[in-house]
Amino acid sequence: MIYLDNAATSYPKPEKVYDEMLRCMKEYCANPGRGGHDLSIKSGRAVMEAREAIAEFFNIKDPMRLVFTKNATEALNIAIKGVLKKGDHVITTSMEHNSVIRPLKTLERDMGIELTIVSGNEFGEVDVEEFRNNIKSNTRMIVCTLSSNVNGIIMPIKDIGELTREKGIIFLVDASQGVGALEVDVEYMKIDLMAFPGHKALLGPQGTGGLYVANGIEIDSILQGGTGSSSENMFQPEILPDALESGTLNTPGIVGLSQGIGFINSFGLLNIKNFKNLLINQIYDGLSNINGVIIYSKKEPSKNSGIIAFNFKEIDSTEVSYVLDKGYGIASRAGLHCAPLAHQTMGTIKGGIVRLSVGCFNTQDEINMLLNALQEISDSMKYVTNIN
Amino acid sequence: MIYLDNAATSYPKPEKVYDEMLRCMKEYCANPGRGGHDLSIKSGRAVMEAREAIAEFFNIKDPMRLVFTKNATEALNIAIKGVLKKGDHVITTSMEHNSVIRPLKTLERDMGIELTIVSGNEFGEVDVEEFRNNIKSNTRMIVCTLSSNVNGIIMPIKDIGELTREKGIIFLVDASQGVGALEVDVEYMKIDLMAFPGHKALLGPQGTGGLYVANGIEIDSILQGGTGSSSENMFQPEILPDALESGTLNTPGIVGLSQGIGFINSFGLLNIKNFKNLLINQIYDGLSNINGVIIYSKKEPSKNSGIIAFNFKEIDSTEVSYVLDKGYGIASRAGLHCAPLAHQTMGTIKGGIVRLSVGCFNTQDEINMLLNALQEISDSMKYVTNIN
Repeated sequence: MIYLDNAATSYPKPEKVYDEMLRCMKEYCANPGRGGHDLSIKSGRAVMEAREAIAEFFNIKDPMRLVFTKNATEALNIAIKGVLKKGDHVITTSMEHNSVIRPLKTLERDMGIELTIVSGNEFGEVDVEEFRNNIKSNTRMIVCTLSSNVNGIIMPIKDIGELTREKGIIFLVDASQGVGALEVDVEYMKIDLMAFPGHKALLGPQGTGGLYVANGIEIDSILQGGTGSSSENMFQPEILPDALESGTLNTPGIVGLSQGIGFINSFGLLNIKNFKNLLINQIYDGLSNINGVIIYSKKEPSKNSGIIAFNFKEIDSTEVSYVLDKGYGIASRAGLHCAPLAHQTMGTIKGGIVRLSVGCFNTQDEINMLLNALQEISDSMKYVTNIN
Repeated sequence: MIYLDNAATSYPKPEKVYDEMLRCMKEYCANPGRGGHDLSIKSGRAVMEAREAIAEFFNIKDPMRLVFTKNATEALNIAIKGVLKKGDHVITTSMEHNSVIRPLKTLERDMGIELTIVSGNEFGEVDVEEFRNNIKSNTRMIVCTLSSNVNGIIMPIKDIGELTREKGIIFLVDASQGVGALEVDVEYMKIDLMAFPGHKALLGPQGTGGLYVANGIEIDSILQGGTGSSSENMFQPEILPDALESGTLNTPGIVGLSQGIGFINSFGLLNIKNFKNLLINQIYDGLSNINGVIIYSKKEPSKNSGIIAFNFKEIDSTEVSYVLDKGYGIASRAGLHCAPLAHQTMGTIKGGIVRLSVGCFNTQDEINMLLNALQEISDSMKYVTNIN
């Protein structure tokens, strides 16, 4: 099996992720922050250490402003619904995932927020000026993906951060595609809210994710419950992270995520990024030499977080993906990838695209095998076309 | 370490829970329902098999009406906020956890629902007639815990289910304390909505839980996002489980939970229940013979899901718990246990209680050691009293 679906979830994980999750579960996994006994304190400490490691990774000054969630979707829902009020105007892009678009469309319908969706060029690349041109007096938030989960295009986050800081607008970044693959510094990029999953390029397990909430951002909880703090209070406590972390946390998952980030740190984010760029270049150049291929991703490292989106002119994306899987043991993903507006922007709403997403455990040999497979598919297509 | 904090989270888990989570993560953990390739299909199948196994365990006829959540708190928030509308009246009990009380108090404050909180006798036991007497024309929902997380008292769920069915009121059960320890049959008990954690007596890992939604119950999502279905739709799909399962699921966690339930099935729920009752009896009888002890739990198996709440008359609960941990290596939990109203009912709001909660891996020898420790604490207390 050649796994090229790392944008859905990275696979495999570093061995230490498995090892430490197992050690956590077997040796000390009591309920963190819910008791004074030795095991509970050990679990609480493990969660705190993970919080600190992740905060440092993103240059978050105060680890207590990093909230653990079950996935990026929960984090995005908290950020959107915990901040926006009736009458607020929000600007977002056509390249957003449904985890951004659906909560926003729901608030537009049910609560009366105003929504502007900007779309950039045919790669979905949005210039900061497009955001600036759409700012109104009631613009409260700009929501932008770090990079597209469909074609990997990287958004000008730092420029948008400067614009929002200048205008006093809250900046929410959906970092689902890109964290662990690109450098993310919340201070440098002037990010106010950032949602991320643990199980993609951060190399943690599924069931993990987080939300960063900058100092000064007021945010309501969407889940209330036990926090292990202020137990006597029948309302949610207001201090972070407790306010946004109701119920028992996924301790082994968080420990695993911490190990995933530890792996990135020990390998070097830049080294991983360069290696992925190498693989992306290899795919791009190879695909460019195959007849009938259309590529929807950019090749430049500064414009691509590790995804090649493509189609064969005459074949449905799901068919190509199916043949790659069944005929060659290559895992890709076809279809719309939960981002319908992105496909309108790219002109691929009808048949979707085939997505190849690389991870740090892929090899150049695997990419050679991929390219051979795609060449064969192209050849057989020509053959079919000839006899018809 | 003698672990008697199983009501917070069960520890350890059965070996198969660890083994299968590890196998899932190492061998096939792609993104379930998010691709057509072999690994994604394997992950999707593992989630589906877990869904079916858990549904069967609770006698849920349609597994698709069982929704996976990150914990019971998320499930309770969905059930409460996804159903209740302005003007609805809700009846609940004083024995509820903050995961029920806080969302309800928040809706009372912010959305204008009406709330009645009934409290029963000094054990928090509520008779079904108390619910009946508080029903009004706008009563939309009754929320009741299966058993108290503070003292283990079991509520008359079947009777309440019959009342709510008769009156056309929605019945939400917080099964956090009790699932895996008591028989739960959603059909027999006429339960409409049931929230449960995976990591307590169901013996699964942290980061898992679920919500059962009976046929005919209309429920809105509180999180919207990618579901891997209806990708072209900018609103949340309405079919279950997708409507309430946004974002990537915790596949290894769900696989682990399935193994936890498999362990209970192979051992026999009734056998586990009887064994826990044996331990509870042993603690109860032993404690009854120790000077200065007040017990807040009932002894009868039909009234206790596996918890003994107690205090030494003169000592703060946190102090007893601390001495048990540091002096004897026994993990208990002191304080309010995120259920302040329960302590008002029991008369323990000032100092809380010491909670001992048994699991299926505790032994009678461990309970003997616990009782010896408590006897020594009592003796030293007497000594301190004498010299003063």
